[in-house]
Amino acid sequence: MATDRLHRRPRVLIIGGGFAGTHAAKALAKLPVDVTIVDRRNHFTFQPLLYQVGLAVLSPGDIASPIRTMVRHNAHTEVLMDEAVGFDLERRRVRFASGAEIGYDYLMLATGATHSYFGHDEWEPLAPGLKTIEDAIEIRRRVLLAFELAEREMLETGTHHPLNFVVIGGGPTGVELAGAICDIARRYMRRDFRHINPAEARVLLIEGSARVLGAYPADLSKKAEEQLTRLGVEVHTNKQVTELGPGYVMAGDLRIEAAVTLWAAGVQASPLGKMLGVETDKRGCVLVNGTLNPEGHGEIFVCGDLAHFEQEGRQVPGVAQPAMQMGDHVARMIAADLSHEPRRPFHYFDKGDMATIGRQAAVAKVEWPFRAHWSGFPAWVTWLTVHIYFLIGFRNRLAVLSQWVWAYFMYTSGVRLIYGSQKLPGWPTQDGVDEREAVKPGAAAD
Amino acid sequence: MATDRLHRRPRVLIIGGGFAGTHAAKALAKLPVDVTIVDRRNHFTFQPLLYQVGLAVLSPGDIASPIRTMVRHNAHTEVLMDEAVGFDLERRRVRFASGAEIGYDYLMLATGATHSYFGHDEWEPLAPGLKTIEDAIEIRRRVLLAFELAEREMLETGTHHPLNFVVIGGGPTGVELAGAICDIARRYMRRDFRHINPAEARVLLIEGSARVLGAYPADLSKKAEEQLTRLGVEVHTNKQVTELGPGYVMAGDLRIEAAVTLWAAGVQASPLGKMLGVETDKRGCVLVNGTLNPEGHGEIFVCGDLAHFEQEGRQVPGVAQPAMQMGDHVARMIAADLSHEPRRPFHYFDKGDMATIGRQAAVAKVEWPFRAHWSGFPAWVTWLTVHIYFLIGFRNRLAVLSQWVWAYFMYTSGVRLIYGSQKLPGWPTQDGVDEREAVKPGAAAD
Repeated sequence: MATDRLHRRPRVLIIGGGFAGTHAAKALAKLPVDVTIVDRRNHFTFQPLLYQVGLAVLSPGDIASPIRTMVRHNAHTEVLMDEAVGFDLERRRVRFASGAEIGYDYLMLATGATHSYFGHDEWEPLAPGLKTIEDAIEIRRRVLLAFELAEREMLETGTHHPLNFVVIGGGPTGVELAGAICDIARRYMRRDFRHINPAEARVLLIEGSARVLGAYPADLSKKAEEQLTRLGVEVHTNKQVTELGPGYVMAGDLRIEAAVTLWAAGVQASPLGKMLGVETDKRGCVLVNGTLNPEGHGEIFVCGDLAHFEQEGRQVPGVAQPAMQMGDHVARMIAADLSHEPRRPFHYFDKGDMATIGRQAAVAKVEWPFRAHWSGFPAWVTWLTVHIYFLIGFRNRLAVLSQWVWAYFMYTSGVRLIYGSQKLPGWPTQDGVDEREAVKPGAAAD
Repeated sequence: MATDRLHRRPRVLIIGGGFAGTHAAKALAKLPVDVTIVDRRNHFTFQPLLYQVGLAVLSPGDIASPIRTMVRHNAHTEVLMDEAVGFDLERRRVRFASGAEIGYDYLMLATGATHSYFGHDEWEPLAPGLKTIEDAIEIRRRVLLAFELAEREMLETGTHHPLNFVVIGGGPTGVELAGAICDIARRYMRRDFRHINPAEARVLLIEGSARVLGAYPADLSKKAEEQLTRLGVEVHTNKQVTELGPGYVMAGDLRIEAAVTLWAAGVQASPLGKMLGVETDKRGCVLVNGTLNPEGHGEIFVCGDLAHFEQEGRQVPGVAQPAMQMGDHVARMIAADLSHEPRRPFHYFDKGDMATIGRQAAVAKVEWPFRAHWSGFPAWVTWLTVHIYFLIGFRNRLAVLSQWVWAYFMYTSGVRLIYGSQKLPGWPTQDGVDEREAVKPGAAAD
C-alpha cells in the first residue's frame, strides 16, 4: 500500500466526478497525495436540480460546473476527461478509452447509476430518462415542442392530438417531473398560446407499486399524492407499464395516448462495477464492507450510487447525501493510513430526505436536528434552502436564486428554448415518428 | 390590399423572428391587424452576443428568448414554429413544411442570412460558423475539448498537438471570436490545467483582404489589429484560404496545423429570398425599393439581412440596427396604408458601428449624437452599455450583467460545459477524425 513507498506521494485515482468523487477530491487536497480525477464529461452535474433544466426553469450552466474549475486551486489534483475501459487490479492500473493507462495506490470508483428499462432497451428513445445535461435538454425539447406542435396543428386543422404527458415511475424524479410539467403548463405557459389552452394538458404519473415515493413513510406518500392531485397530476398507482410505443403507453388495462413519455422508473449501476470483477448485487452495485472496500481490496473504495452499502440491515439509498459523506470518509480513511492509524468504518448520518412536487408543494422526512414529517409550504421552503445551500459555487447559487425569484413572482421562466437536435419531428404515431411533418433547419437561417 | 376588405382585420404574416421580425411584430401590435409570426426555431437569438455563448461566457438562455414570450401580451399576435417552403404571390398564400398554408394581406420576409463557404460546402463540418444557438454550442464544445484533449495527450505521451485555433475571416465576428479565444486561454483557463499551459495556445486570424474590419474606416482597422496583436492574436491579412482539411488550413503559402477551425468569412442570404421569385443580388438578397418592397409587390416587405437596400449609393449593412429600424418602419407603413396616407420611404439612421475585441478592447465608429472614432477602453465601455441596453427583457439584462461582472473580476466563467454531441472525437488528422480516441458516453453514467 501507499505507505510502503515513502519516496513519492501516493496517487489516488478517482473515477467519476459526481457528488462522491468531487467531495473526495476536495478533502484529499489537504493530504500529501496526488489526485487524478477522471470523468467522461468535463463537468460535475448537480443532479437534484437537473429536472429544472429539463423543464426550462434553469440553464445547464446554473447546475453544472467544470470539474477543473472546482479543483483549480489544488496544485496536486489533476483532471482528465476520459472513460475507464478496463482494470488491472494486480498491477494496480486502469486503462482508458483514449489508450492511456494510469497507475494508482488508491482507486476510488464512483461512476454512479444510469436508467434501467428492465430489459426493454428499445424503450429508451421513446421515453428518455434524466441523468445528464443532454438528457435534460432532450426532455426540454420534447416537452416544449409538444405545445408548439399542438398550436400548429390546431391552427391548421382546428383540433390537435391530446397533450398528454406521461411520466413513468413515481419516485422522487418522477414526482418532480410530473409536478413541474403541470406548473409549466398551468402557470408559465397560460398566456403564450392563442389556439390551444396549455392548462388543458394532462399529466399522468404511472407507478407500478401501491404508492408514490415508496422509499418515504406512508403518510408522506399520501401527502405527496394529495399535492400532486391538487396541482393537476393524474396519479395511477398499481399500474405496471407493459408496452410502450411511439405516441402511446400501455399500463395494465390502461392505454394512454402520449405526446411525450418520460422514464423515471428504474436505475442500474454503471457497468464499471461489474468490470471490476468483484461481487455485485442484482442492479450491478458493488458490495462493499464497512470501510467501503470490495472484499479483499483495501486499496479500492467504491462510493455513491455504485456502492451497495448496508447499514442497520438496510441499503443506504442512492442519493446525494450518502455519496458526499462517502467521499469525505474515503479521504479520512486515506489520512488514517498515512498516519498509520486504523480506518474507522463509514456511518451514514441521515439528515432526512425530501422531494419537491411543485410550487409551494413538497414533502420532507426530517431526521436531524429533530424528527418530523413535513409537507406543503414548510417542506418546500426547506427544500429550496437546502438545495441553494448545496449548489456548488457562489455564482451558481446567486444565479439560481435570482431565476427562482423571477419565475416565482413573474410566472415566467426565460430559458424555454428549444435546441439540440437538428430534427423537429411531428407527432409520434403508431408507425413511428411522422417524418412528413418534420421541419429541417438546414441551409436557411432565422 | 388590406384596406379593401374592411369586414375583417388585415393579416400580416411575418416570416423570421430575428431583429426585424420581432420589432415589426411589437410595433404592429398597436395597429388593428392580426399578426402571425413564423420561425423555424421557438426563440429570438440576440446574435451580437452569440460568440459569448460559443466561448462559454454566457448561457444560451441569457441571449435568447422564446418568441411567444416576447409577444405574449399582444392578443392579436400568434406565433408558429414552422418553415416556409413555397410562396403563391398571386393568391397571397405561403406554404409551410408542416403542410399548413397561411394567407396574408401583408407579407414580411426577414429570414436573414447564413454562412457562405464560397462553393466549398464540404468545409462546413470542418469549420463551423456562428449563426444559431446550436452553432455556438458546437463551437464551445470544439474549443473546450481541444484543451481537454491536449491535457490528456500530454499526460499520456509528454507532448501534444499544437493548440492552434484558426479563425477564418476578419470581419466583426472573426475579430470577436479570435479575441475571445485569447481571453479564455490566457486568463480564465490559466489555473485549470496541470500538464499544458493554456496561455501557449496560438490564435490565428486569417483575412483575405488587406485589413481586418474592412467595413470600418482604415484607422479603426489599424487600431483593431493593434489590439488583437496585443491580446496575442496572430493576424494574417492578404491570405486567401485555398484548402481546408481535418487538422489543417492552407492559406496561400501558409500551412497551419489547426486544433479548431472556425468560419467567419462569408454570409449569403436565406434561400427564401430566391424562392420568392423576385430579383435578388449575387448573395441572394432581395432588391427592395425605398419602401422596402420587391418591385411590383407593395404588399410584400423584405427586411434585415435578407434585403438589399441602398442608401446614398451604398448597401445598408446586414447588422442589427438597420434590421430593427426596418421592422419598425414596416409597421409605420402599414399604419399609413390603414389610414389612407402615403407611405414614407425608409431611411436608415446610422448611429454608428462597433466591434469588441476582448477585455477592455474594442473599436467604435460613432455617428450619433456626434461623430468620433474610438478604440480601447472607451469603445469597450460603449459596447458593453449598448449591448446590455438592447438585450431583450429585464431578466436577461440582469443575468448577463451579473455574469460579466463576475467574469471580469474573478477571471473565471461558470458555463464552460462541454455538451451536445454524444461523440467526443480525438484530434482531427489528415485521414479524418481519429475515432480510436473516441470516448463514447452511452450506457454508463457519471
